[in-house]
Amino acid sequence: MNDQHPSSARATTDLFEAVPAEVSIYEVGPRDGLQNEKAILPTDRKLELIEGVVDAGVRRIEITSFVDPKWIPALADHTEVARGVHRKADVAYSALVPNMRGLDGASRAGMQEVAVFMAASETHNRKNINRSTEEALSTYRVVVDEALARGMRVRGYVSCVYGCPYEGTVALDAVLRVAHGLLELGIYELSLGDTIGVGTPRQIEYVLRGLLRSGIALDRLAVHFHDTRGTALANITVALQLGIRTVDSAIGGLGGCPYAPGASGNVATEDVVYMLQGMGVRTGVDLDRLVAVSAKLSGYLGRELPSKYLKAHLGHCARIGRPV
Amino acid sequence: MNDQHPSSARATTDLFEAVPAEVSIYEVGPRDGLQNEKAILPTDRKLELIEGVVDAGVRRIEITSFVDPKWIPALADHTEVARGVHRKADVAYSALVPNMRGLDGASRAGMQEVAVFMAASETHNRKNINRSTEEALSTYRVVVDEALARGMRVRGYVSCVYGCPYEGTVALDAVLRVAHGLLELGIYELSLGDTIGVGTPRQIEYVLRGLLRSGIALDRLAVHFHDTRGTALANITVALQLGIRTVDSAIGGLGGCPYAPGASGNVATEDVVYMLQGMGVRTGVDLDRLVAVSAKLSGYLGRELPSKYLKAHLGHCARIGRPV
Repeated sequence: MNDQHPSSARATTDLFEAVPAEVSIYEVGPRDGLQNEKAILPTDRKLELIEGVVDAGVRRIEITSFVDPKWIPALADHTEVARGVHRKADVAYSALVPNMRGLDGASRAGMQEVAVFMAASETHNRKNINRSTEEALSTYRVVVDEALARGMRVRGYVSCVYGCPYEGTVALDAVLRVAHGLLELGIYELSLGDTIGVGTPRQIEYVLRGLLRSGIALDRLAVHFHDTRGTALANITVALQLGIRTVDSAIGGLGGCPYAPGASGNVATEDVVYMLQGMGVRTGVDLDRLVAVSAKLSGYLGRELPSKYLKAHLGHCARIGRPV
Repeated sequence: MNDQHPSSARATTDLFEAVPAEVSIYEVGPRDGLQNEKAILPTDRKLELIEGVVDAGVRRIEITSFVDPKWIPALADHTEVARGVHRKADVAYSALVPNMRGLDGASRAGMQEVAVFMAASETHNRKNINRSTEEALSTYRVVVDEALARGMRVRGYVSCVYGCPYEGTVALDAVLRVAHGLLELGIYELSLGDTIGVGTPRQIEYVLRGLLRSGIALDRLAVHFHDTRGTALANITVALQLGIRTVDSAIGGLGGCPYAPGASGNVATEDVVYMLQGMGVRTGVDLDRLVAVSAKLSGYLGRELPSKYLKAHLGHCARIGRPV
């Protein structure tokens, strides 16, 4: 193989052809991030975090989860957070709801968007939400119908898309079954989660291709990577090359792998925005303002956050421009 | 844009078409990594590290640097390391040499491969090696001629390819000038360094394309990324998509950004090997044996190393298989 290699030559025009001009950052730090942090952030700090991220330019954010506090004590103040946040008209605030009681709580707290979640893996559904995949889908049918009837928007999460801690590799068919099952309920977007952070670039292409070939439109899909093994930005790059336009991330790289103490959590919003800026993709996020928020958050949580952009920023690494 | 998007459809066949079946890992931890660590590793630990990495399957490794100890005290034992390492016949051991004195030292210590280095940026050359780009090239002409005359193989590094801490963005012309200048000296391979870790995927494609278009063969190029802002694996993915077959990395993600205390160093060999395995690319490296070496090294250095795969491993994160 040399520089005359025909495929390399073809790649010149094709590699980034489908990369969107603009990407929608869906911030999950206050929910997916904080629910996996050891330290519990006081409500006022959570509100400061949410408003800080929004002030930095993020337009979609999941602020809490209306789950039973006995399952997720860190988010026991979901109602106070939902009621306390100063909402901006052009920002979509969402909250996770596991069932009808959660939907009622979210609804009473003034949420206009909620998210439902389940795994692509049968075992993970049984262990994590105590329901089979089919039971979860029928439970959510009632929840989503009711949410839509109340004029709310509903987002859906599929977790363990690229691997399950109980089953190992997850078959594409299982992912397709859950993806179509949730989309048929009326969710507006499906977020594909690499819950334990095992996915690698070719696998991302394989799964996304499978979903697209099955008839799901590109703009119904979002990618949600955990950076447990450092592959999140590489996986996001491939998703962008396929035309994906919504990326989930958590400020500072908050959270962790629930199955691996000390491991990295969600891919960091700063790292995603830095890479997108370098690629000339618009996000509407001001990186300096965003990293100021995560630097403060790091102090509140009393730990160094995983975001590498944040570490470089705190280390006063040379700031320089980028071509193209 | 939807799943019928023509470019997405085309991408099906093209995105990974040029990815090689096998990648050569060039380990730089003992040199580029250790020279940027605060703690100085005793010679016997260095030998244990080098032999451990080789036993894990790495076939090319830079073991030290024959520079004046007053510049890099951490590698003051270069001669002892070069003489002490138990060499395997099928492994290429290399050492950095800044000048003729370095070459003599390496030669006397039994090295059969050496590496020369300079920056793509004029200012960085003046500040880092006290020579202009042209002066550096003419100095190295004498060094490389002599090394080749002694039957040694010579590798070349261009640093600051994607950005310079003094000049900011580096023009492609400057990269081309140094790249061709070094290749004309007779080096067998050119390693393109993102010294301060600012590169992003489209920029990597832009620069690599420029080098290939200028007539440099794909198999003369290696990529060398620092993960300062977390983009290293994404950048490596793009390099692989362009057909690059040699990747520099440092076990554990050793080292750091000399301009940013606390920032990440070289991309971690474990993380690269994990991603490549997931992509079905052969490296010949046994990930379990490799991570056992970095876990030990972390203890020797008395600090948590940046490798995310290592953190997940130490955190006992679920080990699972990956499809395709």
